[in-house]
This record gives sequence, structure tokens and C-alpha cells, in this order.
Amino acid sequence: MFDRIQTPAVLVDIDVAKRNITRFQAYADSHGLKVRPHIKTHKLPAIAELQLDAGAVGITCQKVSEAEAMIAASDRLNDVLITYNILGDDKLAALVALARKVKLAVVADNATVIDGIAAAFASAGVTLEVFVECNTGADRCGVGSPQEAVELAARIATAPGLRFAGLMTYPPVGGAARVQAFMTAAKTLIEARGIAVPAITSGGSPDMMKAHLAPVATEFRPGTYVYNDRSLVARGVAEWEDCALTVLATVVSVPAPDRAIIDAGSKTLTSDLLGLVGHGHVLGRPDITIDQLSEEHGRLRCDGDINLTVGQRIRIVPNHACVVTNMVDAVHVYGSGKAPELWPVPARGKII
Amino acid sequence: MFDRIQTPAVLVDIDVAKRNITRFQAYADSHGLKVRPHIKTHKLPAIAELQLDAGAVGITCQKVSEAEAMIAASDRLNDVLITYNILGDDKLAALVALARKVKLAVVADNATVIDGIAAAFASAGVTLEVFVECNTGADRCGVGSPQEAVELAARIATAPGLRFAGLMTYPPVGGAARVQAFMTAAKTLIEARGIAVPAITSGGSPDMMKAHLAPVATEFRPGTYVYNDRSLVARGVAEWEDCALTVLATVVSVPAPDRAIIDAGSKTLTSDLLGLVGHGHVLGRPDITIDQLSEEHGRLRCDGDINLTVGQRIRIVPNHACVVTNMVDAVHVYGSGKAPELWPVPARGKII
Repeated sequence: MFDRIQTPAVLVDIDVAKRNITRFQAYADSHGLKVRPHIKTHKLPAIAELQLDAGAVGITCQKVSEAEAMIAASDRLNDVLITYNILGDDKLAALVALARKVKLAVVADNATVIDGIAAAFASAGVTLEVFVECNTGADRCGVGSPQEAVELAARIATAPGLRFAGLMTYPPVGGAARVQAFMTAAKTLIEARGIAVPAITSGGSPDMMKAHLAPVATEFRPGTYVYNDRSLVARGVAEWEDCALTVLATVVSVPAPDRAIIDAGSKTLTSDLLGLVGHGHVLGRPDITIDQLSEEHGRLRCDGDINLTVGQRIRIVPNHACVVTNMVDAVHVYGSGKAPELWPVPARGKII
Repeated sequence: MFDRIQTPAVLVDIDVAKRNITRFQAYADSHGLKVRPHIKTHKLPAIAELQLDAGAVGITCQKVSEAEAMIAASDRLNDVLITYNILGDDKLAALVALARKVKLAVVADNATVIDGIAAAFASAGVTLEVFVECNTGADRCGVGSPQEAVELAARIATAPGLRFAGLMTYPPVGGAARVQAFMTAAKTLIEARGIAVPAITSGGSPDMMKAHLAPVATEFRPGTYVYNDRSLVARGVAEWEDCALTVLATVVSVPAPDRAIIDAGSKTLTSDLLGLVGHGHVLGRPDITIDQLSEEHGRLRCDGDINLTVGQRIRIVPNHACVVTNMVDAVHVYGSGKAPELWPVPARGKII
């Protein structure tokens, strides 16, 4: 099926992706939770449309440039949340242009960002929805306390050009209780100021089937779930057969009985470890460890005879699917009864 | 100087790059060693031309597609070594096409690869130079013993369409003595078979100033030396002021006194650690550790007050320069008296 594909290549089983989408949507529906998938995992307008078909209310992007690429590619991607603090005249001008086209929201966790977007939107005569990002333990962005969330909510609510949209968080794994506690406290305090909290949005594929443990949230933003990867299998929330994205590679050298070299290195698999040992799972060969990557070489080791031959092809489930998508201009999409087709990835490589 | 550049961005100080090029060329000239720089670090035809201007005999590429991009961009890049086992009909056809245009050589470490290229080149009526890749301790590709090298040299020498070009290795750091021992033994054995060994090529920036400790080598292939990076500073072979490539980033959040978040994550800096702790060096702030990357966020920590403000810009020397070059479609090149100019990176993102 993949004989004519040059390696290394990124393969996507669209049937598995659809099954993953359907499964989480059914769970979310059963709990009255809205789904707003993060497109960083696939960066493909056609898969975002499948997520909408299943019932998603819109999409999440991480950058203005990602949102531009997705919106330009499909009229249906017209409800977008960008979960990032946006700064800088060029990015703000691009944001205003997008807000004229679609329903758009962003997040902010500090006054500088709020004042910047307020100035840009007020002078453009456009209104932008803004969530306050809250730190529920991941210690990345986000205000550190419900009290700080209230101050920023009030700043947004009174700023020209902005509308307070609610609260957003990207919690750590196992963080549902902290989400529930932080968001409940922040919501109560904000409402006590006479400001409505229209939505509370949380995310993260590892804990997505536990989203109901933070019932204060109204929306969930899973990303990796559409493809799954070795990190999610290691966490016990997916099986190998749920992994829609794999890397096809060719064995280019077997220089020792216990060692083989493939043509997929860090330029395809990336060096993301996500706490794991090794750089991916060779399908059907759990005895093999990918113990080292250089840009164009992946080194495979095993305790006994590696039993691979030069020219043989293998498939690898990467540690982290999202970052692999970003490395390639196109992916080979296939399914049952659907021969592989090359799909360009329009939202990849968006740096600024 | 960088105020108008949107972040994150990759900056290249062309004066520093030229100084790095000149320094190694002078060293190599003083030891009668030919220089064939690896273009994987910069992926820029214009910098490859600077390397030729300084005295390089040609360039090294890691893939057929990289060589295609470099050759298409400059008539002067007409002597190319691809240090990779090349397999597969499509890649072999591309290789034949390149060999019709420029002086081309590849490497091989097994009979399957040799037989494949021989068949392709013999039927095309073109001759290809082939080096035998030798493992001098890095345990990646390469035959494991001088005896195996002889067998492959003889196979190349007698194959239609091929010419035996010599021996190639990519040694481990500190491997000069092993290079000298392996290559001397292999050369002696091959010559005893009546086969000349026209060239012996070694590489690796960390030990480039010790290349004379393996005098059997006739040629050296440094890559990272042109830009340097945090890994080479950590090894004590470069200083921060020798680092030509930096990443310009904006502080987007200071959510706690000891923590700041920048807009450069693994999509720009990559997750390559190269044995280091942290994901880069913030210029002027040795007290800061970049302790975590997600795709679009870099997390900065320090023991005391981080003393950064939202909107402030910082510059980072990445752990590994080569992989950063691969992440961006263009880099901002500047120098003394030369305002930043955007240069496309034609050989980036070459996957197959």
C-alpha cells in the first residue's frame, strides 16, 4: 500500500482519525461539554472540517498565522480561539483583519497584552472576545490566582474594543480538581463584580476522558487525540491501533547485528521526548529502541539480533504527533479502500 | 537594529560566520587538509559560496534533495559529496540527474546500496564516485572493520558505473586516534589489493581543530563551525561571540517573579538537547534557564527575580544551530554596517 511512497514520509490513517474524533465527541456530548479541537496536531483544514462534522463548535489555534492559514483554506472554519498572548503591531493588524472575517477570540494573562489588543481593536472599530488565561498548575502562562483573574476580567470588560469571553486554562495532567477549584473561585469573584462569565475552556488530550471531573468548564480543547501518539499510549489512554499518524522509514544500514539505521531522524521524528526513553515505537517490534537521532539518521537497537535488512521499510509511532506534522509540507492520507493521497499541510511551519 | 523584525526569528551575523569560516580554513591550510563544509548547518547557497571563496574544495550534503536545492541555486556549487546511503528508484534517478550536472560523490556501507547505485549508474551510462563509510566509534552508519572496508572498496572498484573514491567517517568526539588507526589499516589493506585510495574524509566541528591528529585524512567536513551554538560553547571550542546564529524572541508573559514565557518554543529552538540541560542560552542572562519548551512557548526560570517585562525582546543561542536553520523558511542576515536582510533558506525542510 505504501510501496510507491518515498521515505521518510508521514502517513495518516483517516479512518482511525475519524474514530478518535467521534469517540471524544460522544463523550463530550454525553456531558454537555462543547468541543473546540486544537488544530496544532493536524494543521489540516479537511480534518478540522471532520471535527466540525462530528459536532465541534469551532477550532483552537496557537498563533495568528495558523489561524490565517486555516481560515483561508475553508469557509467553514469561522469560529476560532487563539490561545496565546498576542503582542506586536504586525500581529495585531493581522488579528484585526481576521476578526473582520470570522468569530474570533484570544486569551490574555497580563495588562500589557490586554491594553495592546484593546488599542488595536478600538481604533479599528472591531470587537474582540478575550478570555483570561489561568494557571491551574502547568506553570506556563496564566494568572496565578482567582483574584488576578478578576482584575484582568474587569480590565477586559471595561476596555474599548474588547468583550470578556470567560476563562481559559491548559491544565497539567491530573489537574481536573485544580481546574474545578480555580475556575469556580474565579467565576464566583467575577460574577460578584457584575461581570458574566460566558465560557470556561480547558484542554489536554491525556485527561480528556476525565473532563467531567471539572464540570465548571463549558468547553474542551483536545489536540493530540485526533492522531494519538506514543506519549498517549504510554499514559494508557490510547492503544497502538488508535494511532492515526505514523512515520514510514527505510532501513539504510545494518552495520552490526544489534543495530540498524533508518532514514528518519530528528528532521522527521523530532527530538521531543515527553518524558519517554527513546524516539518512537516501531510497529510490530516492541523489542527495538530508537536510541539516538541525528537529523537524517535514526538508530535502532535491540538486545538480540535486530533482524532487519537494508531496504526494508518500517513504521514508527512518534513520541509526539503534533511536532511531526509541523516538519512536513504534506502527509499521505489513506483509509480502508482509500489509497494514499498526498495532502498539503497549510498550517505547518508557521513561525511568526 | 532588530526592532522591525517579527518574532520569533532566526538571526545570522554574517561577519561572525565569515570569521568562523576563515579561522578553520587557515587551520586546515596550515595542515594541508582540504575543507568540504557540510551545508546542513546553514542550508544557504550564499554561505556555501563564502566557504568556497575561503578555499573549500566543495560542499557536503546529507540528502539528494539538499544537494538538488544547493546545486539549483548556484553554478559554483559543482563539487558535492552526499554522505548518505542512497536507496530507492526515485532517489537514484535524482542522483543520476545530479551527476550529469556536477562532480558528485556518495558514500556506502553495505553491498545492497552499492549494487543499487551501480545498477542505476551503469544503465544511465554515468559514473559515480563512491566512498566507503567507516565506523570509527560513533556507532551510526559505517563498516565496523578495515577488512569489511576492503571488501566494499573492491565491490565498488569492480562495479560498472562506479569509481572507488576513498574512505569516509563521521567520528565521535575525541575520536582522532581511532580515525587514524582505522583509516591507516583500511588504506593499507585496500592498496594491497591494488586499489588506490584517492581520499580519506573525516568531519565534526567539536574536534575540527584537532583534525591534524588524524593525518591520514586528506579532507575535513565541518558543519556547525560556521554558526557555532551552545553545544560547542559547552565543549569549550567556541565563545558566545563566535555564535553567528541566534533566535530573537519576545517575552509574552511574566506570570510569576521567577518565571517568564517567550514566543520561541520547540517549533523554533527544537527539542535537541545534545546532552545539555535547558534549551538555549539567553544572551547577557547566564542566570536564566530555559527549562521547558512547548511548540510555541519557551519557559524561562531563574533563582531570583527574572527581571523581564512583557514585550521585551531577548536573543538566544540555541543548543544546536543546524536544526534551528531547518525550522524556518528564511533567516535575517546582518552584519556591521549591514541592516538585517531576509534570506530564504532553499535547502531547509528537505524530508525525502
